[in-house]
Amino acid sequence: MSVIETTPSREGLPLLVIPNCVPVMVKAFREFLPEFDGICRVRLFTDTMLDEEVLARRMKGADAVIVVGFHVGDDLLRTMSQTVRCIAFGGTGVDNYVNLEQAKEYGIRICNIVHYGDAAVAEHAIALLMEITRRVGEMNADMHEGVWHPLDGMELYGKTMGIVGFGGIGQWVARIARGFGMNIKVWSRHPHEEAMRELQAASAESIHDLFASSDVVSLHLAYNRNTRGIVTADDLDALRAGSILINTARAELIEAGSLAKRLEKGDIYAGLDVFDREPMPEVDPLRVVPGTILTPHAAWCTDTAVRNAVRQCIDSVRGFYTGEATNVVV
Amino acid sequence: MSVIETTPSREGLPLLVIPNCVPVMVKAFREFLPEFDGICRVRLFTDTMLDEEVLARRMKGADAVIVVGFHVGDDLLRTMSQTVRCIAFGGTGVDNYVNLEQAKEYGIRICNIVHYGDAAVAEHAIALLMEITRRVGEMNADMHEGVWHPLDGMELYGKTMGIVGFGGIGQWVARIARGFGMNIKVWSRHPHEEAMRELQAASAESIHDLFASSDVVSLHLAYNRNTRGIVTADDLDALRAGSILINTARAELIEAGSLAKRLEKGDIYAGLDVFDREPMPEVDPLRVVPGTILTPHAAWCTDTAVRNAVRQCIDSVRGFYTGEATNVVV
Repeated sequence: MSVIETTPSREGLPLLVIPNCVPVMVKAFREFLPEFDGICRVRLFTDTMLDEEVLARRMKGADAVIVVGFHVGDDLLRTMSQTVRCIAFGGTGVDNYVNLEQAKEYGIRICNIVHYGDAAVAEHAIALLMEITRRVGEMNADMHEGVWHPLDGMELYGKTMGIVGFGGIGQWVARIARGFGMNIKVWSRHPHEEAMRELQAASAESIHDLFASSDVVSLHLAYNRNTRGIVTADDLDALRAGSILINTARAELIEAGSLAKRLEKGDIYAGLDVFDREPMPEVDPLRVVPGTILTPHAAWCTDTAVRNAVRQCIDSVRGFYTGEATNVVV
Repeated sequence: MSVIETTPSREGLPLLVIPNCVPVMVKAFREFLPEFDGICRVRLFTDTMLDEEVLARRMKGADAVIVVGFHVGDDLLRTMSQTVRCIAFGGTGVDNYVNLEQAKEYGIRICNIVHYGDAAVAEHAIALLMEITRRVGEMNADMHEGVWHPLDGMELYGKTMGIVGFGGIGQWVARIARGFGMNIKVWSRHPHEEAMRELQAASAESIHDLFASSDVVSLHLAYNRNTRGIVTADDLDALRAGSILINTARAELIEAGSLAKRLEKGDIYAGLDVFDREPMPEVDPLRVVPGTILTPHAAWCTDTAVRNAVRQCIDSVRGFYTGEATNVVV
């Protein structure tokens, strides 16, 4: 563990603490931290620490905190409320990580970041899909072992891409899929007339209808109490033989346990970046069922997305100190 | 080896011979061969035979021949000319496989097939690119061994895709790249004003200019005496650190030996489906240089492309028998 501190001697300035980090973000933080010169002191801990007591100790005396991927439980929030007046969350779905009502009562401003990774996640969804349709990773491993064994591919052109959830990422995936000459079908709780028209997208009446009529289905819903388990075992059964399910959103969108069971039949494919437990346990049915391409929650993790995310966190905190409402949730 | 024959007893009918095949095509041929009932007999050999003497023996007495991936040397062409009056070539660049002048003198109709694999090859070019930018195949191998290790990705959005050759496949790649939100830059010997406008593509003055100003370069030229070695060592040197070269066209487009040498520097990436010698020798510098993703000439090989190719070969031969000029080259 190492700590990066800016202007530690200027104790008259307020204190921003970033009590943990991931390696890929440290570089971007280093680049942007000088922007706080004269506004606040910064104390950045560079390791991926998740122990609540250690985190609490590190945040002691902080006026503002940037939260990178740890849950702020009610006890921790109470401890933090002694000094903290702004929590900038390094992700979008902050309501899954902090009790917003409680924070409001404590008078803590909560910020999140938005659309920082739309391109990153959308492109990863397509990358998962293409490893299923073209098996480049598999052939590349062969080639580097001296094996020349072409594998048959599947074409995306003319196939139907079914998209569940049509926010920033869902629309981005649809645009890429249109570039491939795929037909777009969408299920969404919200109308998106302009984007639907632009992408010549058809509307599905239900998730079940979408699953039954698409060659590829990609999930792009936010996760909350309304979307937990929104894709049922029955929907998965509606997938036709040979079709492909992509999930770069959240594993909990799918009825618990039902995906491994559907995949066991061996007649569909799945490209998955998200899992019920992460890191995935060593023994997990999804590791052994046929037809799966798996990545370890890496979709968000590009050079550009990380930079966008850190940029927005910095802006949220600066907005707090300068009296602007940047990315404020409550 | 097995032989499939249709109506062998009807010796009054002319004879079409397909003297070799690849497994992936056999299924499609089986499906379409009944269309020749009453037009000609068909004799299909299902193995991947390349021995010229064996091939000559198999084609004995044929009026028409479908050539799948073997070179028709001048000697073989002379032997064939005794009975054969139509050669339907199962690919586009037939002039690299048959002496067209000579065939014309013998009075043999030569047909090729076109655009059967535009989508297949274009999608494979993107699949190679995405294994470089997102490393899904690499992470998937880890995940199936129980390793949870996210790898950093690169985003395509906003980057520049440089395309060398703007025919059917080059334009197809450009359309997909536009879907990703990439900027398109093209070098082509022919004007393509409408497609350039539609794709908001910029024009490069030279191949060197294109290599120097693109984040990704993808080759999509036909191979002939004018394009052999058209990409020089000097062009490769112009690639900026971190840029990506994709070749799904022909290895011979690049100055012999220069690509492995450029890759040895270790500052660029390459996704390659084509090689100077195929199958690639077990000892080859491209297997060991850093930053390469390799596939064994598999870009053309999708369910749909194979079906398109066989469909066109069948149409060429039927056109020959029924007096129509289908896919005629000379």
